[in-house]
Amino acid sequence: MSIPLQYANDNQQTHLAELIEFLRFPSVSTLAARDTDTAATANWLAQAMTNAGLENVQIIPTQRHPLVYADWLHAGAEAPTVLIYGHYDVQPAEPLELWETPPFEPTIRDDYLYARGASDDKGQVYIHVKAVEAYLHTVGRLPINVKFIVEGEEEIGSHNLHEFIPANRELLAADSALVSDTAMLGPGKPALVYGLRGNSHVILDLIGPTRDLHSGTYGGGINNPLNALGHLLARLKDEHGHIMIPGFYDRVRPLSLEERELLARFPLNESAWLRETGSPELWGEPEYSLVERISARPTLDVTGMYGGYIGEGTKTVLPSRAHAKISMRLVPDQDPAEILQLFERFVRSVLPPSITLNILHSGGARAALVERDTAPMRAAAAAYEAAYQHPPVFMREGGSIPVVNQFESDLQLPTVLMGFGLPGDRIHSPNERFYMPNFFKGIETSIRYLDLLSNPSA
Amino acid sequence: MSIPLQYANDNQQTHLAELIEFLRFPSVSTLAARDTDTAATANWLAQAMTNAGLENVQIIPTQRHPLVYADWLHAGAEAPTVLIYGHYDVQPAEPLELWETPPFEPTIRDDYLYARGASDDKGQVYIHVKAVEAYLHTVGRLPINVKFIVEGEEEIGSHNLHEFIPANRELLAADSALVSDTAMLGPGKPALVYGLRGNSHVILDLIGPTRDLHSGTYGGGINNPLNALGHLLARLKDEHGHIMIPGFYDRVRPLSLEERELLARFPLNESAWLRETGSPELWGEPEYSLVERISARPTLDVTGMYGGYIGEGTKTVLPSRAHAKISMRLVPDQDPAEILQLFERFVRSVLPPSITLNILHSGGARAALVERDTAPMRAAAAAYEAAYQHPPVFMREGGSIPVVNQFESDLQLPTVLMGFGLPGDRIHSPNERFYMPNFFKGIETSIRYLDLLSNPSA
Repeated sequence: MSIPLQYANDNQQTHLAELIEFLRFPSVSTLAARDTDTAATANWLAQAMTNAGLENVQIIPTQRHPLVYADWLHAGAEAPTVLIYGHYDVQPAEPLELWETPPFEPTIRDDYLYARGASDDKGQVYIHVKAVEAYLHTVGRLPINVKFIVEGEEEIGSHNLHEFIPANRELLAADSALVSDTAMLGPGKPALVYGLRGNSHVILDLIGPTRDLHSGTYGGGINNPLNALGHLLARLKDEHGHIMIPGFYDRVRPLSLEERELLARFPLNESAWLRETGSPELWGEPEYSLVERISARPTLDVTGMYGGYIGEGTKTVLPSRAHAKISMRLVPDQDPAEILQLFERFVRSVLPPSITLNILHSGGARAALVERDTAPMRAAAAAYEAAYQHPPVFMREGGSIPVVNQFESDLQLPTVLMGFGLPGDRIHSPNERFYMPNFFKGIETSIRYLDLLSNPSA
Repeated sequence: MSIPLQYANDNQQTHLAELIEFLRFPSVSTLAARDTDTAATANWLAQAMTNAGLENVQIIPTQRHPLVYADWLHAGAEAPTVLIYGHYDVQPAEPLELWETPPFEPTIRDDYLYARGASDDKGQVYIHVKAVEAYLHTVGRLPINVKFIVEGEEEIGSHNLHEFIPANRELLAADSALVSDTAMLGPGKPALVYGLRGNSHVILDLIGPTRDLHSGTYGGGINNPLNALGHLLARLKDEHGHIMIPGFYDRVRPLSLEERELLARFPLNESAWLRETGSPELWGEPEYSLVERISARPTLDVTGMYGGYIGEGTKTVLPSRAHAKISMRLVPDQDPAEILQLFERFVRSVLPPSITLNILHSGGARAALVERDTAPMRAAAAAYEAAYQHPPVFMREGGSIPVVNQFESDLQLPTVLMGFGLPGDRIHSPNERFYMPNFFKGIETSIRYLDLLSNPSA
């Protein structure tokens, strides 16, 4: 066992205790009330990077949440440079009552560490901080040059990082990018993700009367925005999952026969997958397989909706307002800005004049497809195989990491999506967790990967 | 001026102060957390009736909220008996942030008394308690026999009163019923309501996955209950207000040509009515007039709806559950129980197997049409005209008072709906209010009505 691997092995409990500290911060980026906590999280991470031996550590302010940058660049001009990306912000923890233990009081049960952000993405980004430390605290140097860029807005669309990248090409210049924010196929079964969906978010307010009215006195003579929202939703997507916004599919790059064959070989156990969701049955576009539906096809989902009286019992009102949050997942080569335009034009064309519409576009990210046959990909496969004794599968993932498309398009970096999550990690859901053996194996894989990158022909 | 009228005139401020006490009780019948307050309200009212000189005052327990009964039966066997009905429960006050002053801290501004329940129905039922007092505290007797039955479940469907009536025909035996729980046409313009809509309430839970899922990882492969709710709502009612539940209209009694002509003469200022709602434009079944749509045609309105993430910003979940509360207003001769059966059968037939449905029927009341040409109606018209110097118009109202149908069908009582509310009272809405001149004029009208009833030929 190499000296850095030995160090990582000997310090597992210390590293876990640090991760638990990291997870105590409620860095929910979408909530303004958590801005102070989110800033404190960035400070903590910057200090942890300094402690690990990284240099030039910077907390870079943005219009919302700061970026954290750090590097170690003494491997020599010949050695490659890897840009490691992750995010320290997390999704809201609600509904809180469904958590078995509080989301920001990390708790160990069996082999899992339970906390909001445990898998997405604090546990995964911290793996690489500890891998670097394993070199710098022992042999005093890394086999390659390393840069970290860790953001606090991944869960709200990465807008400020999106603007930071083209303005800071030199600072971020590298030979490849490394992202750990995805899942493996299962315990002991690593996966290299080569495709991610993009997304666009919309918040709709439908306004009928200016106050809630008595549903008996006024009902029948005034359009009800909740009923109108029902009609609108029914027009956006049909009952089989086809999105009916004109032009929505125009830029969708068709799946090649070769890729459909690759996806068809993907070892997804459909009944186990369904059981894990608790849903009564599989659903979606009949002309596509389940794997295609959840990773290679665009979607439109209502993520939240409310209006009228939502307390106990009944209240006979004709409500003033209906609210809906809608998330669309996009695939290559859909353009989020264009999709939002098509969405708004369609919604305005179908809503009746008895309803006033306020629409807020919040975010948008392009989908990403990375090259599968690159030197970093081969090194990643070798690192996984050495650590897990199992070769990785190639897969597409249905989620989004907004910046990945930009690493490829703006910085021309071949990107490796080396995930250590598991499908049952419940990211974005109550009782999010991280499989602790993957935290330790992840540090090992990262140590091996940095070494393999230094010698790509090996 | 008669002695009772003089008494009412001299004691206006005392009567108003008592009403304010009555309104301080948050007797929200739908909320279990308010059950103690609701019981305390019944106690207060019983004491107020005793103070007014009424006899045989009883707080009658039911399975939920108690009934309050009182009578004065010494006018002689020849004199008629009137059964006065009202309710002491109120609608929920939410959304609280829209109230200018707290809903249970009654506040006077200009000519209005602001509080939840001010117009619906505490202010109106208390009118008759004070009218009776005006006789009993002065001349020591009433011109007719009087019984009061005041319930605490009108806003949740009057289920226990519904069962109480057929089991207590003797206790409630009378010659006519009097209900003040409706509105006049405007200040100084009294109205006798001869038609009320019925209603049926349904609460739906649509369940997809058993927990909120990541909308990227699972989106496209699992049916989203919020999107499914949209499809369901779109199938229940079309965009012009026609309800599409098979059989829904089968028992609707067609409007006679004579009644359509009567309704067409009803002096509703449509643009003023629209302005009062704040809605961008009138809406509803194109083949019916506005007056017909809001009073003589059945409706289906979503009164509340929620699901998924409803906090600030966005959360990319595919939610587990969608909830909707639906209120239908019914007209003669629709049967609420049958309508609920038709509703459930239809919903189950259109929901896909990827969604599980829980359905809760909460309540149901038949519509009512009362005879317009009866002795009590003529006495009511005369009492209004004497008090307001203006004859009443006859109108239908779109709201529901569940018990009215039963007064006619079970007790064979000709019923007078003598309202003292105003269209701008915002009942069921924030900033509910009661026009104080109507409280005082109402007491005068009631005093005159009791006298006119004693001599129907006058």
